[in-house]
Amino acid sequence: MGMVGGGRGAFIGNVHRMAANLDGKIELVAGCFSSNPEKSKLSGEDFFLDPNRVYSTYQEMAEKEAALPEGERIDFVSIVVQNHLHFDVAKTFIEAGFHVICDKPVTQTLDQAHALRDIIHNSGKIFCLTHNYTGYPMVKEARRMVKDGELGRILKIVAEYPQGYAVGDVEGDGQGKINNWRSDPNIAGISNCMGDIGTHAHNLTRYITGLEIDEICSELTAFIPGSSLDDDGNSLVRFKGGAKGIIYASQISNGDENDLNIRIYGTKASIEWHQEDPNEMIVKFANAPRRIYRRGNDYISEAASGNGFTRTPFAHPEGFIEAFANIYLAATQAMADQVDGKPAPEGGYDFPGIDDGVAGMAFIKATVESSASSDKWVKFPIV
Amino acid sequence: MGMVGGGRGAFIGNVHRMAANLDGKIELVAGCFSSNPEKSKLSGEDFFLDPNRVYSTYQEMAEKEAALPEGERIDFVSIVVQNHLHFDVAKTFIEAGFHVICDKPVTQTLDQAHALRDIIHNSGKIFCLTHNYTGYPMVKEARRMVKDGELGRILKIVAEYPQGYAVGDVEGDGQGKINNWRSDPNIAGISNCMGDIGTHAHNLTRYITGLEIDEICSELTAFIPGSSLDDDGNSLVRFKGGAKGIIYASQISNGDENDLNIRIYGTKASIEWHQEDPNEMIVKFANAPRRIYRRGNDYISEAASGNGFTRTPFAHPEGFIEAFANIYLAATQAMADQVDGKPAPEGGYDFPGIDDGVAGMAFIKATVESSASSDKWVKFPIV
Amino acid sequence: MGMVGGGRGAFIGNVHRMAANLDGKIELVAGCFSSNPEKSKLSGEDFFLDPNRVYSTYQEMAEKEAALPEGERIDFVSIVVQNHLHFDVAKTFIEAGFHVICDKPVTQTLDQAHALRDIIHNSGKIFCLTHNYTGYPMVKEARRMVKDGELGRILKIVAEYPQGYAVGDVEGDGQGKINNWRSDPNIAGISNCMGDIGTHAHNLTRYITGLEIDEICSELTAFIPGSSLDDDGNSLVRFKGGAKGIIYASQISNGDENDLNIRIYGTKASIEWHQEDPNEMIVKFANAPRRIYRRGNDYISEAASGNGFTRTPFAHPEGFIEAFANIYLAATQAMADQVDGKPAPEGGYDFPGIDDGVAGMAFIKATVESSASSDKWVKFPIV
Amino acid sequence: MGMVGGGRGAFIGNVHRMAANLDGKIELVAGCFSSNPEKSKLSGEDFFLDPNRVYSTYQEMAEKEAALPEGERIDFVSIVVQNHLHFDVAKTFIEAGFHVICDKPVTQTLDQAHALRDIIHNSGKIFCLTHNYTGYPMVKEARRMVKDGELGRILKIVAEYPQGYAVGDVEGDGQGKINNWRSDPNIAGISNCMGDIGTHAHNLTRYITGLEIDEICSELTAFIPGSSLDDDGNSLVRFKGGAKGIIYASQISNGDENDLNIRIYGTKASIEWHQEDPNEMIVKFANAPRRIYRRGNDYISEAASGNGFTRTPFAHPEGFIEAFANIYLAATQAMADQVDGKPAPEGGYDFPGIDDGVAGMAFIKATVESSASSDKWVKFPIV
Repeated sequence: MGMVGGGRGAFIGNVHRMAANLDGKIELVAGCFSSNPEKSKLSGEDFFLDPNRVYSTYQEMAEKEAALPEGERIDFVSIVVQNHLHFDVAKTFIEAGFHVICDKPVTQTLDQAHALRDIIHNSGKIFCLTHNYTGYPMVKEARRMVKDGELGRILKIVAEYPQGYAVGDVEGDGQGKINNWRSDPNIAGISNCMGDIGTHAHNLTRYITGLEIDEICSELTAFIPGSSLDDDGNSLVRFKGGAKGIIYASQISNGDENDLNIRIYGTKASIEWHQEDPNEMIVKFANAPRRIYRRGNDYISEAASGNGFTRTPFAHPEGFIEAFANIYLAATQAMADQVDGKPAPEGGYDFPGIDDGVAGMAFIKATVESSASSDKWVKFPIV
Repeated sequence: MGMVGGGRGAFIGNVHRMAANLDGKIELVAGCFSSNPEKSKLSGEDFFLDPNRVYSTYQEMAEKEAALPEGERIDFVSIVVQNHLHFDVAKTFIEAGFHVICDKPVTQTLDQAHALRDIIHNSGKIFCLTHNYTGYPMVKEARRMVKDGELGRILKIVAEYPQGYAVGDVEGDGQGKINNWRSDPNIAGISNCMGDIGTHAHNLTRYITGLEIDEICSELTAFIPGSSLDDDGNSLVRFKGGAKGIIYASQISNGDENDLNIRIYGTKASIEWHQEDPNEMIVKFANAPRRIYRRGNDYISEAASGNGFTRTPFAHPEGFIEAFANIYLAATQAMADQVDGKPAPEGGYDFPGIDDGVAGMAFIKATVESSASSDKWVKFPIV
Repeated sequence: MGMVGGGRGAFIGNVHRMAANLDGKIELVAGCFSSNPEKSKLSGEDFFLDPNRVYSTYQEMAEKEAALPEGERIDFVSIVVQNHLHFDVAKTFIEAGFHVICDKPVTQTLDQAHALRDIIHNSGKIFCLTHNYTGYPMVKEARRMVKDGELGRILKIVAEYPQGYAVGDVEGDGQGKINNWRSDPNIAGISNCMGDIGTHAHNLTRYITGLEIDEICSELTAFIPGSSLDDDGNSLVRFKGGAKGIIYASQISNGDENDLNIRIYGTKASIEWHQEDPNEMIVKFANAPRRIYRRGNDYISEAASGNGFTRTPFAHPEGFIEAFANIYLAATQAMADQVDGKPAPEGGYDFPGIDDGVAGMAFIKATVESSASSDKWVKFPIV
Repeated sequence: MGMVGGGRGAFIGNVHRMAANLDGKIELVAGCFSSNPEKSKLSGEDFFLDPNRVYSTYQEMAEKEAALPEGERIDFVSIVVQNHLHFDVAKTFIEAGFHVICDKPVTQTLDQAHALRDIIHNSGKIFCLTHNYTGYPMVKEARRMVKDGELGRILKIVAEYPQGYAVGDVEGDGQGKINNWRSDPNIAGISNCMGDIGTHAHNLTRYITGLEIDEICSELTAFIPGSSLDDDGNSLVRFKGGAKGIIYASQISNGDENDLNIRIYGTKASIEWHQEDPNEMIVKFANAPRRIYRRGNDYISEAASGNGFTRTPFAHPEGFIEAFANIYLAATQAMADQVDGKPAPEGGYDFPGIDDGVAGMAFIKATVESSASSDKWVKFPIV
């Protein structure tokens, strides 16, 4: 694989590399790790790359890699640059004939997302968006339970994603944790908090239940003085089909770390999953003991245990990197199958794609518009 | 004490009696336990009462008890009848010269609540409303922490109260758990779920933080077919002073039992309390280990440990009844002090009163109006 | 009821009174609350007693109460004096014709326990020993599950009871929390920690599983300098029938509060219960999701929910006092049935009695002897 | 690196490979994956190896790799064969000039462990034993706290490691989960359960506190019919310096999964860590709120966060593989430093070595001897 962005010290680039490394099937062989060619070079050394395949611009990289003989050139590129560049980089590599694994949010605007969807569809290339929380086995088990009707009809969904790392910026403790590109509309887009983490909560909802939002009623707040983008957002949601819900996210919820949680209430049963305790899922009933489903057991379905999605036995905890690696695993399986001329498995591959990206951009657009509106409900854009 | 309502088999009447009994300082000596005189009589036998003091109507009870010599007649009455009768019964006993402990919601309408407030203020009598969740020691500790500024400025509050006991009625399992007076507007008032339990979540918010709601944006839903009142409700909230929040309640959240939780986020620290695990409070910081405050320890403040509010040492769990008993303890202390001519302690007595009742009725009114409105925000009525 | 011991400020006396008060069926009418007559009198005033029934000695109390007409005299006495007096007081009241509820340990020595058993059997009186942790509904549910064979054959039991309140005495912080009568062999008997709380862990094991110890291998330690009695004790256990186990208790386990836990492993399933979270029981299986049994649900058996043992609905937490009250409830039901000439229910009454007391004294004796022995295994005395 | 053992389908071999892959700094280039040459070859294909470096015997591998030019041959070998072969394979590779990373237990007997220690010391080669649970950051933090005196003097340690996966074999459900080489004394050595997992509990105790056992009193049980080795073991422990403790392990604790827990009680504070929830550590005090230390925070020390031991931010859960990878990380750092002629860091490298292996074999020997003895206490062999 190749990588664009994610040089020395970049958190998410490092996560992508660990996720790619884990199973010993993917090798990083080329990259453009920084807009600063010197930095890019140094990062290439860190990763033991051939200096000839460490590029100064992503355009150069796409061109030169494409010129290499098949079998030698990269099979796909991982895009871990800042939000506003996702579209251009993805477009460039797809058009140069490469598969793409891209960090979220997919683009800076909904229009770009729609445009990218067309490009992808026309290209026949694999596009994977790393909505990584769907990589957790127990999230896959949750989806299977919903699909199999074990919850009955879904009535209510509460998805929450509070973080607190930026609270110091509210009264100005001088740490400035949020004062980076995330709060710059030219880079991050029209939303900070909802774009960065609210979309994960939304995507999780969608992935598990398959329900699309019909109408949304949001309030976004910038608690950090001088910030033009939200650092907290709360939404009431009406799903198509009649379920109701709440989706909220925050970066100023003091002391919360990465507290993504989802509760899905059905007429037959309910499920509850906590990202900070990812190896368990709680299943609740109106009149039966609660059940704790734990990753790695024989009673866990193929959806969660199959395809290499479970790497260690029960109670040998798996975490964030393993979930991330599951996204890579499924996407690269799809690429390999395409090479081998194998058809997709029944039910499709299990990794997030461009449709998830479009839905995420629609979510950002709708929640920002709703927040600015004095009308209660805003129609969700067509995905 | 005397009691109106709460005959054989009544859940809340029994809780009131246990709460009154616990400390051995209150004796039930009179009552009108049912609108059915025969039932009232049988209940009186259950409670070992003198048959002469078991009455057929609450009016008769007020009149005859008032006619008894001081020292022999009841000191106060506990009102545990259905919502729509609260006002009349409370008014009757206050005007007959008795203190009152009344179940919530205080009345059927906000107007009644205002009227009752005047009656109480003019009478000089003690009026206690059993918003019992404020009786938990760790809730009192939470309030003290906010008061003492340990959280800094409050930014966000999430209060939730999902229950699931009525979910069977949604698809009609024939159990009809909600199909009682709670879903009858003539008895329960304009709201079922928000009135019954949403008000507890609201009251808890108010009790701990002292913040009043400025504007509210709600959606109430009746998932149970044929129901005219809500069984689920979600609200976005703007508090006076700038904090934002979410308050929601539900009776159809399958498998949730009595899951009242509150999270209060401040600039310096945050707190989290779960009613189902009431002896603990979690305190979170941006960059320090979380602290678990546990009831009964020496480091717990007088606000939570004093006044008899803590009855057992640490980790000898206290529960719902003890919290309820704390309401009785504080209210009857106020009555005793009045008799003894003692002034109220600095900071006042720690039990919910008519102002909490008025605020609760305002919350019900605002949330119902907001739900019916196409405007996003509805002004909260003046409390 | 009457009470011996438990005057002003006594923790356990107050717990007994709250437990007796809770259901409104038991009234404290007489007592000898202290060996100091003046203190006894003042305590009597606290409890609103007729001064004529507040006695200076327990002998006087037994005599004078017995002389009162039936219906006026006490029905039973609660004994909450220090350990070394239990035998004499219990003997006196039984021989005076009263039922007895007595705090544990039942006596100071195993011989006394055997002697008291004879006295009780000859008298026909009800004797209840407040091994209160068996009063928790979920402990009763655990026992039922074992009885019904839901665990299969029991293989292993781990019962632990660490407390840490006395750790300050180890390095001598001047608080001297343990330096009271508990560490005085003339009052407490031959063991402090194992006698005071180890017996609870042992009793819980016995209550739930019905298994008796065959052989024991113990080490008791006095970490507190100058102490002649143990403040920590660890035991390996062989149960009759082949199960193995560990029973341990401690008062110097820094930061542990009242951390009584039991894990019972069977061939079909296992259960786990934590006193600090008493409303839940965890049931574990080799290949099925864990189940969380929660008090108050319809799926909970009559053994736990019947007989008034469950007072509030699910997730309205019950605690220590309610469990204690269940002991009073069952014991006084037995007394009432005796008065009414009713036979005991099938399966007997559910409260601890003299046999539990004898077993507890045998446990203390065996563990102390084992600790002093260089042989690995000491035979458990015949209960 | 090279690998001996761990072919297709082997659990622990796969874990070693993932641990080695994770950081992208170690490449598997040679191996002898099975005693069956055909199987070894197929495994080599799975791992994309040059067929010339997939060997039929480990002796051949050691010889041929040693014959390769420096820079081309492997730097170290990972040994993941069955217990009884550890000694021979390790000896062979060390004597051929390679560093070794070896699965535990280090050898089959204590004598072998002593012999291997001499071989290693004479060779100057790095030897790492994968007592992987010491790789968790919060375990490292626990060790630092003890070292820095934050717990005061250690009084008591409770280390437990119940698993339940083999319980089906007790009554013979036909699954035969334990009926593999682990229960064969010719392969596993003199103990199954204590050797396999009891040693982990012992090692964790030693790693965190630095305390060595002085005397031990054990009972091992073979609950599985026909088994000659233990599947359950309980030990009382006296540590040098006066601390007391319990160490136990089990494979028949129905429903327990990988429940390694440790509680360390000191005079100033206590700590509690649960392997199934590895990102947290609980710190308890006699009179202060409990503190929850969570991996990845700024307040976590360099011991846990430095050296690459922490890969993701707080609450992006790390798990078993990351902990395992930390062992590889520290051991290969030591190898690299040796190559570079760098001295070891102050305080040494943080990975388990031959001394841990010797201590583990001593533990197995002592616990088996104690179990067979009628004397209470058996002296722990000199490590």
